[in-house]
Amino acid sequence: MDLIIKNGTIITATDTYKADIAVKDGKIHMIGASLEAPVGVEVVDATGKYVLPGALDAHTHLQMPFGGTTSADSYEAGTRAAACGGVTTVFDFVIQGKGKGLIESVESRKDICDPQACVDYAFHTAITDLRPEVLEELEKSVEYGVPSFKVFMVYKKEGLMVDDGVLAAALERARDIGALVSVHAENPDLIDRRIEKFLGEGKTSAWYHYESRPEFVESEAVKRAIHWAKAFNAPLNIVHLASKEGLDEVTKARDEGYQITAETCPQYLYFTNAVYKREDGRNWVCSPPIKAQDSQEALWEGIKRGDITTVATDHCPFQSYEKDWGKDNFTKIPNGCMGIENLYPYMLSEANKGRISFNKVVEVCSANVAKLYGCVPQKGTIAAGSDADIVIYDPDKNFVVSKDNMHSDVDYTIWEGVEMTGYPVMTFSRGKLVFKDGEFVGEAGWGQFLKRSGRK
Amino acid sequence: MDLIIKNGTIITATDTYKADIAVKDGKIHMIGASLEAPVGVEVVDATGKYVLPGALDAHTHLQMPFGGTTSADSYEAGTRAAACGGVTTVFDFVIQGKGKGLIESVESRKDICDPQACVDYAFHTAITDLRPEVLEELEKSVEYGVPSFKVFMVYKKEGLMVDDGVLAAALERARDIGALVSVHAENPDLIDRRIEKFLGEGKTSAWYHYESRPEFVESEAVKRAIHWAKAFNAPLNIVHLASKEGLDEVTKARDEGYQITAETCPQYLYFTNAVYKREDGRNWVCSPPIKAQDSQEALWEGIKRGDITTVATDHCPFQSYEKDWGKDNFTKIPNGCMGIENLYPYMLSEANKGRISFNKVVEVCSANVAKLYGCVPQKGTIAAGSDADIVIYDPDKNFVVSKDNMHSDVDYTIWEGVEMTGYPVMTFSRGKLVFKDGEFVGEAGWGQFLKRSGRK
Amino acid sequence: MDLIIKNGTIITATDTYKADIAVKDGKIHMIGASLEAPVGVEVVDATGKYVLPGALDAHTHLQMPFGGTTSADSYEAGTRAAACGGVTTVFDFVIQGKGKGLIESVESRKDICDPQACVDYAFHTAITDLRPEVLEELEKSVEYGVPSFKVFMVYKKEGLMVDDGVLAAALERARDIGALVSVHAENPDLIDRRIEKFLGEGKTSAWYHYESRPEFVESEAVKRAIHWAKAFNAPLNIVHLASKEGLDEVTKARDEGYQITAETCPQYLYFTNAVYKREDGRNWVCSPPIKAQDSQEALWEGIKRGDITTVATDHCPFQSYEKDWGKDNFTKIPNGCMGIENLYPYMLSEANKGRISFNKVVEVCSANVAKLYGCVPQKGTIAAGSDADIVIYDPDKNFVVSKDNMHSDVDYTIWEGVEMTGYPVMTFSRGKLVFKDGEFVGEAGWGQFLKRSGRK
Amino acid sequence: MDLIIKNGTIITATDTYKADIAVKDGKIHMIGASLEAPVGVEVVDATGKYVLPGALDAHTHLQMPFGGTTSADSYEAGTRAAACGGVTTVFDFVIQGKGKGLIESVESRKDICDPQACVDYAFHTAITDLRPEVLEELEKSVEYGVPSFKVFMVYKKEGLMVDDGVLAAALERARDIGALVSVHAENPDLIDRRIEKFLGEGKTSAWYHYESRPEFVESEAVKRAIHWAKAFNAPLNIVHLASKEGLDEVTKARDEGYQITAETCPQYLYFTNAVYKREDGRNWVCSPPIKAQDSQEALWEGIKRGDITTVATDHCPFQSYEKDWGKDNFTKIPNGCMGIENLYPYMLSEANKGRISFNKVVEVCSANVAKLYGCVPQKGTIAAGSDADIVIYDPDKNFVVSKDNMHSDVDYTIWEGVEMTGYPVMTFSRGKLVFKDGEFVGEAGWGQFLKRSGRK
Repeated sequence: MDLIIKNGTIITATDTYKADIAVKDGKIHMIGASLEAPVGVEVVDATGKYVLPGALDAHTHLQMPFGGTTSADSYEAGTRAAACGGVTTVFDFVIQGKGKGLIESVESRKDICDPQACVDYAFHTAITDLRPEVLEELEKSVEYGVPSFKVFMVYKKEGLMVDDGVLAAALERARDIGALVSVHAENPDLIDRRIEKFLGEGKTSAWYHYESRPEFVESEAVKRAIHWAKAFNAPLNIVHLASKEGLDEVTKARDEGYQITAETCPQYLYFTNAVYKREDGRNWVCSPPIKAQDSQEALWEGIKRGDITTVATDHCPFQSYEKDWGKDNFTKIPNGCMGIENLYPYMLSEANKGRISFNKVVEVCSANVAKLYGCVPQKGTIAAGSDADIVIYDPDKNFVVSKDNMHSDVDYTIWEGVEMTGYPVMTFSRGKLVFKDGEFVGEAGWGQFLKRSGRK
Repeated sequence: MDLIIKNGTIITATDTYKADIAVKDGKIHMIGASLEAPVGVEVVDATGKYVLPGALDAHTHLQMPFGGTTSADSYEAGTRAAACGGVTTVFDFVIQGKGKGLIESVESRKDICDPQACVDYAFHTAITDLRPEVLEELEKSVEYGVPSFKVFMVYKKEGLMVDDGVLAAALERARDIGALVSVHAENPDLIDRRIEKFLGEGKTSAWYHYESRPEFVESEAVKRAIHWAKAFNAPLNIVHLASKEGLDEVTKARDEGYQITAETCPQYLYFTNAVYKREDGRNWVCSPPIKAQDSQEALWEGIKRGDITTVATDHCPFQSYEKDWGKDNFTKIPNGCMGIENLYPYMLSEANKGRISFNKVVEVCSANVAKLYGCVPQKGTIAAGSDADIVIYDPDKNFVVSKDNMHSDVDYTIWEGVEMTGYPVMTFSRGKLVFKDGEFVGEAGWGQFLKRSGRK
Repeated sequence: MDLIIKNGTIITATDTYKADIAVKDGKIHMIGASLEAPVGVEVVDATGKYVLPGALDAHTHLQMPFGGTTSADSYEAGTRAAACGGVTTVFDFVIQGKGKGLIESVESRKDICDPQACVDYAFHTAITDLRPEVLEELEKSVEYGVPSFKVFMVYKKEGLMVDDGVLAAALERARDIGALVSVHAENPDLIDRRIEKFLGEGKTSAWYHYESRPEFVESEAVKRAIHWAKAFNAPLNIVHLASKEGLDEVTKARDEGYQITAETCPQYLYFTNAVYKREDGRNWVCSPPIKAQDSQEALWEGIKRGDITTVATDHCPFQSYEKDWGKDNFTKIPNGCMGIENLYPYMLSEANKGRISFNKVVEVCSANVAKLYGCVPQKGTIAAGSDADIVIYDPDKNFVVSKDNMHSDVDYTIWEGVEMTGYPVMTFSRGKLVFKDGEFVGEAGWGQFLKRSGRK
Repeated sequence: MDLIIKNGTIITATDTYKADIAVKDGKIHMIGASLEAPVGVEVVDATGKYVLPGALDAHTHLQMPFGGTTSADSYEAGTRAAACGGVTTVFDFVIQGKGKGLIESVESRKDICDPQACVDYAFHTAITDLRPEVLEELEKSVEYGVPSFKVFMVYKKEGLMVDDGVLAAALERARDIGALVSVHAENPDLIDRRIEKFLGEGKTSAWYHYESRPEFVESEAVKRAIHWAKAFNAPLNIVHLASKEGLDEVTKARDEGYQITAETCPQYLYFTNAVYKREDGRNWVCSPPIKAQDSQEALWEGIKRGDITTVATDHCPFQSYEKDWGKDNFTKIPNGCMGIENLYPYMLSEANKGRISFNKVVEVCSANVAKLYGCVPQKGTIAAGSDADIVIYDPDKNFVVSKDNMHSDVDYTIWEGVEMTGYPVMTFSRGKLVFKDGEFVGEAGWGQFLKRSGRK
């Protein structure tokens, strides 16, 4: 026995109960109504605290070349910040290089990530070039442990976009081999035409980033992706869903029995498009942009009724000076925001305030992610035999976010000043304490590659 | 330590994992990846078996005076059959006597049930007379541990029905005090008129029981009940939902964010109205009657997508000779079917065949029931500290239902000949073995009254 | 030739064009691009005017015993006011006496109406007592020229209500014989309970008339009536529809192909429930009451898209002193408002302001009424051979409604002070001028009973 | 007076009545209950016949270069066949040449058409190149009398397609200037990918034309077009709508108050995709292809409830030998079918059989077309002052379509052998008899260019 967590209230996606946890060899060894600690075993007293499975952030872009630069958090910085926010597994996106294979692309990123990872990590692959041999490789990728793929319905000029024919082919193939296709859903033609128009009219502030891709630009693509998923009866996951109308389409399709899942992000749940009217609005520039108030409210309702199945961050920060490139022209702002350290604390804070239940937070940030992406029962719950990825949460500890108490490498945060009711006080990654009382206490290289399974 | 269940696969509403369980003083004391049994402690080897929380059957009518007789299973027989079907908590309906109070009505049934109960039991109260002082008594009933009430939208002539004004008042009050209102939803006027018409035409077979209350008779009342729940923003539970159109209305209301829950029954999931064309169709006569194939399919979809939240039996059997009273006149058939011993085995068998997951069965037959009716974490899960209400399920044991291997007092079963893939082999009630390998091994009087909480 | 109307713009439900009209023997004899008037024939110059078919007010309660008194407009006063508002056919409701037959009931009202009628009139019969022989009589009533029936879903205590079984039977029978059933849709139990509650709380102002039967009280009954119409695939007409939610249900059913039609009234299109907060709010008390702003807007949308098929008045006025009975107790206010003289002017004024087209006004106030109730091509259009029921409308004449320029016998009007853009200047009933420049110029007894046909 | 049509039953979109019609100078001069013919005036006795406004076929491709050839009906042949089928106005599509202006493109086609036209004609312009100056030219085109434009969402490789940005821009501009945008809605990427796949698999029969663009390929584009129309609150017309799912989207948008209209074609109403399994299936090859039975039924329902507003032909025939090019490869079949002579007879025959009313046929084939495209009251009705475009229809004359009794230049017809109940016996174009008893009796060059108005 290596560790006993005593007297806490354990919260899983379905249960809430008082019990003690014993950890051994990185696994949860035992959960008991009252466990005795053998001599020499470390005891953490969780009296008055909640004991939660660590979150899985299924959507990050660490150290990613993009927009003429590289996203500002290295794998080390990103997973360090993750640990400090209660995220014990990070899913990063590998972008398939043109002409490159899928597994080859994954392996080259794995080599970069492995020595840096402070918590466990997994990969999705973004397909950009679905040549016949790549279509064939999909199944091998599932066996390799990467059974989830993303396609971009935007970024036409950037060469990332695939057309509807490719999207449909990917959906059809994924359906047959137990893989999952996710989409970034926005309409490229409208964006391009609106950008051209706004620039022509001298409308260059961050607000026009939003205006160039408002609600209807996103929701069209969501409808279209769902249309193909239904046509081919294929599972589909909508990532970073931000609009009410898009969500309504998800709900409808799920009511009809289709396997449509949706992910939203904390920035869409806390902020509204009003941020783009701020002088420093460029700091919130990400794609899809944050939408209006009614979408924010709808997203919360979607979480409550289960139509939004996961919450992840789309963490892809840039430094202030990079964001400043677009001070006078929104098209020059590198797209992306931070959130990996705020995801779980923010969602738990909302539970603490009564908006949703703690079980629901565990469900959308941990259990559902692990199920959707094929890593149960190893991850996503507090159960005997699971990895001891555990967060101790103090519901009475208040916390105000500031750049100074965050653990990323970025020199600002969009969450600056946000007040949390309750906050994590410890994070364990496979039994190892990696975060304690505001400090990162883990180490780079500890994290392991997570091999996942496809749908059965 | 009193007992250790080793090597099984534990299945809760959310998790599936291999671990051992230690029981002490009727509670789950410990769950561990590998538990050592101290000398003298009984060990159950669950290798190759599933270890599940006992089911909660939220809908029974035991020993109930009805239709000129009394339902054929006494509390003892009913709870004995329950134990043998993996049901470890039985919720029976107390009908408020006219002029009687609610708690008074409960207590008089409690006195009858207590010495007979083989597993734990709880009560809902059916409100038939909502005088001002009864409206006041609702809150006291919540405190007493009976926070759930039912109203009948039918049985006008029988004096059980309440009108829409009463239903609305009950919903409004329940909303404010954390109670839950359930409804039996059918339209009395249509039923009465259709019965009169059929009898006038000499149409007296069991088929006309169905024809007198077909899909549209049920779905109208479902719509109406939901309408009032929405108007007053009150939680509402539809019991024994049997029709597609009714379910569609539930789904719509839930999508809009209303707290509408629905229960269906195994007879609606396995049979169709075709049974009423059988020569012995009267044996399936219950209200609401079993509907056509499309409703059966829709109900399964509703379970899958979560719009049907619980499955219970409406167990209310009568002896063959009583059913025979209606041989030549369907209106003389006592209404009600058996199912308490078939609920969990049937649902688990469907999971075993791949229709839904085992987690889903635990969710709808156990976890959701316990949550909806206010008895978590004591009931509804396998977790340290919970009651050791445990079912050991053998997925490889096949079973054919027959009157002879059932444990009810009734002289026939509608489930005769139904083949189950997999079957329970042991049931523990608070750690006590009450069912083993086809035999009841418990005792009358063991079961305790379950005091429940209202919504927070 | 008796009359030529020259140089006007003719407007029918579908066409708008300039042409002249010749009238002979009460019929439209000829419509021509340019007609010459033979010597001695009267010529009306309609230059700059619109020439419209007279409206058909399909919903009036003239001289009706109700609420302890009799509605204040006699058949003479009501049809006189009709003529002055461009209504050339009045449909009055005959209430079937308990124990009486349908045709017998019609004939006794016909005797009263005939000598008084200033314009043509027709009857619907309100069924209150559907004995087997009355069910039989329905077909005879169709042959008699009264193919439309109404049932009340309210007025339980008043003995007018029929239960759902009767409503369903009426729908089924009407379907088979080409008749039409209309419903007054409100829920009686909610009304009764709410009234009791409000009175108990001393809430007695006109506002509580509204509060005792708000949107959800109406929309429930609308849903229910439509449910039965769909179940029996029978045509159904919802009269005086006033709520958005009710309308939404109509739209849905029509989309599904069911023959559901809906009528609304001008008071629901112009006023909102805010009137009930006025000191003299009792003057607007009618049932169903006027709803909130969102319903008003929805009703206009329903007219635009064709889901509201007709507009009629529910004209049922009472004198001020009678309304005053309920000054301190809303339940004592006789229910009903005036509108027969305001219907067409108000709707045309809205067209004149651009809200809808003039064709649409003719459609909902004239053509659709004539089609729905079986009196085309005699009524409802401007076409050769049709009755010369013609209104000359001056789009440039403004008009402010006041008690003094109305032609009813009632001593006030809820339309007092309402400004109309454009106003009728002449009304012809079968070629006879009955209204000219603000004055009634017709005579009692001119109007004839209109024998109508059932659906083919 | 030039002509009197006596004793017929006149049918407009709203009315049905017996009356006589006098024609003078190409216009309807008078409609009377009984008109006397001055000496020397020709009298047509229409006893027992129906007298209808001529149809307007809003969708033809005459003499159009396409698919490596030219559509087989010249303007003369096409308008001759039109006259013989009761179509008195033909709307042809002008394809904007790349680099060409809109009006310039119209005028060059006008020059070709004018000397050939046997009935009146109008043009829509298909926008293929929306350069800034062309965006400006839209308003001039409205003034010129061509206020309706089409964009192709397909034919990417053929250079006709515009992207979503262009479609949105066109919608927005058209909204502001009172113009109307129509779309050919299919998804090009799916089509291309599916064709490639089928050819690769050796699947080359006509059936694979259908399979390469089945229901979901059309309905996706319909949804997308409607999405943009709603986003910009712009009127939108869906031409040749052929799928149930597409229609459902139209209905939904109309319910929400958007100005969405839809056209379907007789081939979608009479045939199903089963024709593509015929040995000569290539003859039915058109785009969008004919869909399955459920779509056919839904289209009829859409007509009934008014969500399909117009019916037109998409007449674009090719000779047998041209169709034969694709005998062994469906991609080589020139796309297009004939129908201009069958539209009105077929629809009227369906009315005659009772499926819909005659008024409805006049509405969708004549009145609504004239209203939607800005040519009332000149066209689309029987009213004094309107063009004397009149069809005499004999409801008792039966007719079997064959190549030999058609008046097109094409050497086969897909309507071969189809039996019509009732048939036109005369067509008048502006008072001139152009078709009589099966023979064309008009002349090339009689038809005039129809200058139309935009929305007010």
